[in-house]
Amino acid sequence: MDSKKFTDLNTSPRILLGPGPSMVPSRVLRAMATPLIGHLDPEFITIMKEVQELLRYVFQTGNDVTFPVSGTGSAAMEASMANFIEPGDAVLIAVNGYFGERLCDMAGRYGAEVHRIDRPWGEVFTPAEIEEALAQRRYKLLGVVHAETSTGALQPEIGAIAEAAHKHGALLVLDTVTSLGGVPVQIDAWGVDVAYSGTQKALSCPPGLSPLTVGPRAQEVLHQRKTKVANWYLDLTLVEKYWGDERTYHHTAPISMNYALREALRIIAEEGLENRFARHRAHAEMLWAGLEALGLPPLVESAYRLPTLTTPQLPAGLDEVAIRQKLLAEYNIEIAGGFGPLKGKVWRIGLMGFSSRRENVVLLLSALRELLG
Amino acid sequence: MDSKKFTDLNTSPRILLGPGPSMVPSRVLRAMATPLIGHLDPEFITIMKEVQELLRYVFQTGNDVTFPVSGTGSAAMEASMANFIEPGDAVLIAVNGYFGERLCDMAGRYGAEVHRIDRPWGEVFTPAEIEEALAQRRYKLLGVVHAETSTGALQPEIGAIAEAAHKHGALLVLDTVTSLGGVPVQIDAWGVDVAYSGTQKALSCPPGLSPLTVGPRAQEVLHQRKTKVANWYLDLTLVEKYWGDERTYHHTAPISMNYALREALRIIAEEGLENRFARHRAHAEMLWAGLEALGLPPLVESAYRLPTLTTPQLPAGLDEVAIRQKLLAEYNIEIAGGFGPLKGKVWRIGLMGFSSRRENVVLLLSALRELLG
Repeated sequence: MDSKKFTDLNTSPRILLGPGPSMVPSRVLRAMATPLIGHLDPEFITIMKEVQELLRYVFQTGNDVTFPVSGTGSAAMEASMANFIEPGDAVLIAVNGYFGERLCDMAGRYGAEVHRIDRPWGEVFTPAEIEEALAQRRYKLLGVVHAETSTGALQPEIGAIAEAAHKHGALLVLDTVTSLGGVPVQIDAWGVDVAYSGTQKALSCPPGLSPLTVGPRAQEVLHQRKTKVANWYLDLTLVEKYWGDERTYHHTAPISMNYALREALRIIAEEGLENRFARHRAHAEMLWAGLEALGLPPLVESAYRLPTLTTPQLPAGLDEVAIRQKLLAEYNIEIAGGFGPLKGKVWRIGLMGFSSRRENVVLLLSALRELLG
Repeated sequence: MDSKKFTDLNTSPRILLGPGPSMVPSRVLRAMATPLIGHLDPEFITIMKEVQELLRYVFQTGNDVTFPVSGTGSAAMEASMANFIEPGDAVLIAVNGYFGERLCDMAGRYGAEVHRIDRPWGEVFTPAEIEEALAQRRYKLLGVVHAETSTGALQPEIGAIAEAAHKHGALLVLDTVTSLGGVPVQIDAWGVDVAYSGTQKALSCPPGLSPLTVGPRAQEVLHQRKTKVANWYLDLTLVEKYWGDERTYHHTAPISMNYALREALRIIAEEGLENRFARHRAHAEMLWAGLEALGLPPLVESAYRLPTLTTPQLPAGLDEVAIRQKLLAEYNIEIAGGFGPLKGKVWRIGLMGFSSRRENVVLLLSALRELLG
């Protein structure tokens, strides 16, 4: 092995305005580079407690079982299915984009009988239509995507949906991957039973952990399982003992990632959630106005538009791939294309966490004006 | 939320001589703190290819499917069971410590009929006894732990064991969590079908990724599955498209952790595997001699002793917890206790990767001499 063929890491200074990862504050990068301590060191136990307390703040919950799963967003998403489904359970998934589809796929792998209610990509559900679907039969859980990263739609009225789920005996599992830390997420006030997120979106922490919170109804379902959780790594009956008071060894937590998450959450606490939401909204509105002016109106109706992720519609015949390549090559700006039914029809522009900045919006709009010229 | 209650991260300068994490070179910490690029950025694709090429070097393999799973060691361990087991398959696990037990647990969760062959903790198997067990019936796979982190035993003759597995139509899955990068691991020369490891042991990278390599026999088994892999996050039929030439999005890779792993592997390539193995052995021998002199002889017979992890036997009546606490409080040294049948009977002392240093051995022995007084 000729070690000289691998040079020092030398990456370009990207401006990350895609669907994640978002840009990471230097404070978080520095915290992440702190020399390691052991994952059972009393000092690390303190750090774990702090991360949990800060996560409870961003989730707006008092749930004991609130901690970062040791994997990227998809890991906590899978934990939210694996732990509450036993073979043969019926589940209902509201599908209006890719992540709803993925919930169906995951639920099926754990033996669930998967039922779905569908809306076209870019639309949202009414609590009434979800309740109608819930009334059809007894479901173990209802899966809803709060912020669809594939479409830019923000599902409203989560509180009413939670109420409907509970009335019909189902848990509400909520995907907050692209909402947590960028738009209001009120786990307790809304009555959400299980919610998960990723660190690399509006929390502005590198990818590698996925925050999860589990409420008392869901914990009861977990503890009344008749079968073992069909996934060892994500088995909350084991993981909750590591993140709970017992601190029983399960797996080695990603220590550096937890350092980073602690700092990213500390920055959120300093800014305050309300200020943070207002900042995300203000920059998103600037972006939406600018895109309209460029003839790229957002796909999603304004009432349901996600401040963290915008999907401008593209004119027919536009070579959208070429423009994205030029944005990257000439401006170091990353945005993403659409996919599935939205492939070639929209872009996906993220203004998440540290990336949600006035200068980024102005630069992106100027660059697009130039390139669309 | 009063953000002031969370101070700057301020951890003690630990000398990590436990079973992992090991200490991480500052070059790796700095690489990890590099600002992020997107996980589908062409520059990140290049980084992924480099990580794969370097991993093939440390695994000594030409396997295409060689990449870091996006979770700590246990994630790749579970991937090694989930992807090759279908419900009803019989598997054979060689159990001589905790990680063999865990393989049984994991295999069972994927519907395997789990058979086991046992040896007391601290001992190893002969290829002959494993072959005798393999001959009892047709097994889909054989799971063997190369380096038992719970006991300090190094399983020899992996080549002969692989041959026996193949003769009887089974895949060999090898746990190299505590051996990779510290003692010889020869995936191709030995004929190992699937092997996994962790980054936080002899690779001296923070925990958060788990290297995995899958050979052609195992890939064939994967592609001939009749059922979906019962785990979405670890489904290699999906993940191999992300790490393969298609680069199809599956989940967001932990970008910073991949930066870190690339640098850790680059350091290994610079040192050279042979030099690295010699260094681990030399420092382990120093430690073994010093422990003998202190009346703490290693549990494992010298021929099967793991250079990366040593388990000194403790005299009856020793308050071993108090001594470990003093090591941490007075010397900043972390070592670990035994567990399971070895609880209170041994310590677990790791000399892995960057932690395997003459000064660490000398300091630890001096500190123990003082504390055992």
